[in-house]
Amino acid sequence: MKQRVSLLDTDLSLSIEEREVPQPGPGEVLVQVKSVGVCGSDIHYFEHGRIADFIVEQPLVLGHESSGVVSAVGDNVSDIEIGTTVAMEPGVPCGRCKECRSGRYNLCPDVEFFATPPIDGAFSEYVVLPRDFVHPVPAGISFDAAALVEPLSVGVWACQKANVSLGTRVLITGCGPIGAVCALVARARGADVVAVTDINADRRAQIENLGFRTVDPGQQELPEADVLLECSGAAPAIDQGIRALAPAATAVLIGMAPTDTVQVPVGAIQGKEIWLTGTFRYANTYPSAIELIATGKVDLDALVSAHYSLDEVEQALTHAKRHPADMKVMVRP
Amino acid sequence: MKQRVSLLDTDLSLSIEEREVPQPGPGEVLVQVKSVGVCGSDIHYFEHGRIADFIVEQPLVLGHESSGVVSAVGDNVSDIEIGTTVAMEPGVPCGRCKECRSGRYNLCPDVEFFATPPIDGAFSEYVVLPRDFVHPVPAGISFDAAALVEPLSVGVWACQKANVSLGTRVLITGCGPIGAVCALVARARGADVVAVTDINADRRAQIENLGFRTVDPGQQELPEADVLLECSGAAPAIDQGIRALAPAATAVLIGMAPTDTVQVPVGAIQGKEIWLTGTFRYANTYPSAIELIATGKVDLDALVSAHYSLDEVEQALTHAKRHPADMKVMVRP
Amino acid sequence: MKQRVSLLDTDLSLSIEEREVPQPGPGEVLVQVKSVGVCGSDIHYFEHGRIADFIVEQPLVLGHESSGVVSAVGDNVSDIEIGTTVAMEPGVPCGRCKECRSGRYNLCPDVEFFATPPIDGAFSEYVVLPRDFVHPVPAGISFDAAALVEPLSVGVWACQKANVSLGTRVLITGCGPIGAVCALVARARGADVVAVTDINADRRAQIENLGFRTVDPGQQELPEADVLLECSGAAPAIDQGIRALAPAATAVLIGMAPTDTVQVPVGAIQGKEIWLTGTFRYANTYPSAIELIATGKVDLDALVSAHYSLDEVEQALTHAKRHPADMKVMVRP
Amino acid sequence: MKQRVSLLDTDLSLSIEEREVPQPGPGEVLVQVKSVGVCGSDIHYFEHGRIADFIVEQPLVLGHESSGVVSAVGDNVSDIEIGTTVAMEPGVPCGRCKECRSGRYNLCPDVEFFATPPIDGAFSEYVVLPRDFVHPVPAGISFDAAALVEPLSVGVWACQKANVSLGTRVLITGCGPIGAVCALVARARGADVVAVTDINADRRAQIENLGFRTVDPGQQELPEADVLLECSGAAPAIDQGIRALAPAATAVLIGMAPTDTVQVPVGAIQGKEIWLTGTFRYANTYPSAIELIATGKVDLDALVSAHYSLDEVEQALTHAKRHPADMKVMVRP
Repeated sequence: MKQRVSLLDTDLSLSIEEREVPQPGPGEVLVQVKSVGVCGSDIHYFEHGRIADFIVEQPLVLGHESSGVVSAVGDNVSDIEIGTTVAMEPGVPCGRCKECRSGRYNLCPDVEFFATPPIDGAFSEYVVLPRDFVHPVPAGISFDAAALVEPLSVGVWACQKANVSLGTRVLITGCGPIGAVCALVARARGADVVAVTDINADRRAQIENLGFRTVDPGQQELPEADVLLECSGAAPAIDQGIRALAPAATAVLIGMAPTDTVQVPVGAIQGKEIWLTGTFRYANTYPSAIELIATGKVDLDALVSAHYSLDEVEQALTHAKRHPADMKVMVRP
Repeated sequence: MKQRVSLLDTDLSLSIEEREVPQPGPGEVLVQVKSVGVCGSDIHYFEHGRIADFIVEQPLVLGHESSGVVSAVGDNVSDIEIGTTVAMEPGVPCGRCKECRSGRYNLCPDVEFFATPPIDGAFSEYVVLPRDFVHPVPAGISFDAAALVEPLSVGVWACQKANVSLGTRVLITGCGPIGAVCALVARARGADVVAVTDINADRRAQIENLGFRTVDPGQQELPEADVLLECSGAAPAIDQGIRALAPAATAVLIGMAPTDTVQVPVGAIQGKEIWLTGTFRYANTYPSAIELIATGKVDLDALVSAHYSLDEVEQALTHAKRHPADMKVMVRP
Repeated sequence: MKQRVSLLDTDLSLSIEEREVPQPGPGEVLVQVKSVGVCGSDIHYFEHGRIADFIVEQPLVLGHESSGVVSAVGDNVSDIEIGTTVAMEPGVPCGRCKECRSGRYNLCPDVEFFATPPIDGAFSEYVVLPRDFVHPVPAGISFDAAALVEPLSVGVWACQKANVSLGTRVLITGCGPIGAVCALVARARGADVVAVTDINADRRAQIENLGFRTVDPGQQELPEADVLLECSGAAPAIDQGIRALAPAATAVLIGMAPTDTVQVPVGAIQGKEIWLTGTFRYANTYPSAIELIATGKVDLDALVSAHYSLDEVEQALTHAKRHPADMKVMVRP
Repeated sequence: MKQRVSLLDTDLSLSIEEREVPQPGPGEVLVQVKSVGVCGSDIHYFEHGRIADFIVEQPLVLGHESSGVVSAVGDNVSDIEIGTTVAMEPGVPCGRCKECRSGRYNLCPDVEFFATPPIDGAFSEYVVLPRDFVHPVPAGISFDAAALVEPLSVGVWACQKANVSLGTRVLITGCGPIGAVCALVARARGADVVAVTDINADRRAQIENLGFRTVDPGQQELPEADVLLECSGAAPAIDQGIRALAPAATAVLIGMAPTDTVQVPVGAIQGKEIWLTGTFRYANTYPSAIELIATGKVDLDALVSAHYSLDEVEQALTHAKRHPADMKVMVRP
């Protein structure tokens, strides 16, 4: 059986290719892809052909925020039915190394992650994944929302790392989709989101629509907080955000900085004994992220502003790039 | 009754002054000072008249690593006898604020700390402290060792923050007295101190004498570690140290950086989900620090290389400054 | 100035006595009491004259869930105004011992707690407390709700101990007021309260009115959970509740068992590596408990079913005892 | 190729059987067994034919504390050489379930554990294990010591759960081999082992030989401690041990109680907010346990008191049962 996939070539052109539909091996599942979100990393590969040491050296399928319907199962898979709607966890670790055995499989050095060279992503009609990385979602959750369990997981993981809880004053820097999911998750955990910041007024307006206070960091001081969720990757945001923290607070760097090193206010970190960390994807987040949607605590459909077909991946990427205040652009294969 | 104190004037000259011996109030203890260690901060005040926002604006008594003998007790003090040898915890918090009530009294905004303007330190014959900050030490511990419970506490606190434990691979940057106590405490906790680094060969030699492996960071790569205890405050050490860490490792900034911000490898922090924090003094460390000495796990007397009298504080400070490989210079009032 | 207080005599009779209004000392505040909740412990002292080793050996003022209005302040109190509505934290620790310095002041051996012999409680017109234990509440919070910050704190503390968070499956045994506040706090932290159990159908109905699922433990199996908040003190609930837990789960004993020891399923604790602990009051909970009410996440007024005057304390205690399904009876001095 | 294995039949008789030497599959390793410790569970199966729900319903090979030499490797195993001395981790989890993915693979419901029906153990000449559960040991470690990494792991795990660290006062109940390894590990972590208790004077004498203080719990009160490591499974030890704990202390039930429930002093657990948990085997402990031996911090050879051949498994089990003060009896196939 043949399927169509959207390929990013090494010359950074996009085209549709016909490929054989893969067969699920033992313990694996074949999923018919229904919805795939466009992420900043997809745009970055499309524009630059690389992120850090990951280089597009052969044609690559982009897309890693994906959902679909189970189409076939391999041997030894008996606990999921064909036709089940699923959210796909795009990173498959080795399951054997020290990191995997310690419960932090996101740090597995051998993880294979969708749309990270040379591993293909989900801008295609079908993908194969191990059963354990295919998460059924309850009825009533849209394919878009199921796909967006992936970015939601980033927020779940960050809030978990920072132990965001009842009454925690949370400051979020960056009003993009990751800032949005961080704010939504923090609120669902009972936190007090004291402000979400962005230098772009249109992006601030989007976050305000979700019911959050925003701050223009060029105009106003940032309010004191117990947790900083830094989603912009911008050096001034890192600096200002850390300085706004209370004693014994936690700062989590989620947005990827454009440079390998950044000026960090170590005086504040020492004087207030602040904890600073970063997130690299997530681990064990899908169940609670799905529950967040299923219980209505988080409405991911509200973040979607445009849809494109598999033939229109280039338009989808261009749209997302040109409209930074549009939270999410989806591709529907 | 009169006593003699060593005063640092605002013109940075040192002189002996006669002062009234203070009377212990309710809940307080008068201690006859026996031994006081010279710390880098004492030298810094002597040379520059300030550290960050703490400025010598009136004559100041330096010295905060101190021990002595209980000489008198105030009202409501019934659980310590006159003549008891004590280590003095030099920072007295308010006991009422949010930080104090949360068990992190080192972050109390109203803490009064020896030799931090305008609070006088211990280069004097007598000092008064609340009973709770005067810690009896068992027989057989020297006055020098009792005084050095203070810097030892810095190591106890740092190792506790980083959860240094059995089999933890610990990398220490900086072979000064704080690097030494960190190494000693880490070893006592069952850790594997993989290396202590310093660009100064004499200082490395001192640490080697204590039984630790050292590395010249200009010549050799740093070994991989689970914990970095950064004791130098030097930007290259922070950078190299963090890069040497394993996934999910912890870095603790203990040495004070000369600048308020430092280039930090945030890419490594994110990609490996490293936790970075700093220490500001310590809390609740004196009992276990004293036990470390009492049980012979740590020998602080071996760190002492010179003694001076109260009249010789200037010589003591100058000695310490000129001989960076001399771990500890003590003043004996 | 005179005030009226309700006194429990050693013969367990209640009467009104005239007493001098106390003067606030340095750092203290005089509060005119406005609302006081009746707690099971008040009823127990009234009926039995003792709880464990705390014995009514001299006339005692009961009541420890209280709110009021600041009426006067002592020296050195400058940050609260006369007329401010406050919730009163009824346990004042020494602030100096090991427990206090470690941030767990609820375990201070010298704590003085309202209505715990020989310390008087709040069934009176006025009480004096240190400023730090008098918590201002925002406008719009009723005196009843402000008084009930105390039992709410019990739920805040238990949920914090168990790290109840997003997606945590929480099982609560006991549908009394403490079960109710635990359920409300767990829900506000994003947890999935899978069931609240009680053998009394009327009490289950009360909890259902708050929007929770209930289970009759005599009829149905308890659902699997990640956290057990045991609020009944009943041995069968402890046993069943622990057995319902998932691997690595946490059980918190909040309700006081009538006996000093209880049969505990240690096989389950070992085989599933369950963590079991108990709570003794709370520490540092008032700010977030007040915020829970202020933000409308928890509606404590809905728990109140009857009001009595200071002259009717006996009726209040009797009412509470006779109507176990009535969540809260309040006394308004 | 044939090998000889020692079989426990369902009638609880022991005999030698010839079997085919198994072939290592992909990712697996064939190990020639060199030394196997006799554990209480082996004796229990030999005497009673069952432990809890694990029943000897078909002939079973006992023995799970084992070491050996790599004899062959399967496909995809390239990082271990034939001839390497290894300690064998006897429980192989599924690597895919929620528990495995969370880093607590000891709680995997599908774990296959040596000598736990119907999984065969190591009283045989050869065994096959996945490469990841075969841990190379440095030169200079005896086969006996390498085998005893298994019980040592129990102590490593318990101390880790209880966060035994510098200055922690540790009380251990039970002077058997598990009590001994707990004491050795606690000491290596810098703890103060305040006492190891046993009602049997011979067993106390063995622990004293290792340099620990002991207490006869029938004669003396137990000293106050911050951590209880309960290794006896005896109800009085659980009760006394928990009562001896300080506020906020931790109790770990390691020894298996003969009954499913035990009277536990819940009043103490609540009043002092003690944390109680149990251990079920261990996870991720082998590397640090091996390092403990390699660095000389723990001498396991000192625990061995007798050796038997594969033909003498019955004598080995009988010896161990009759001499409870003999720490370890080894079988050398």
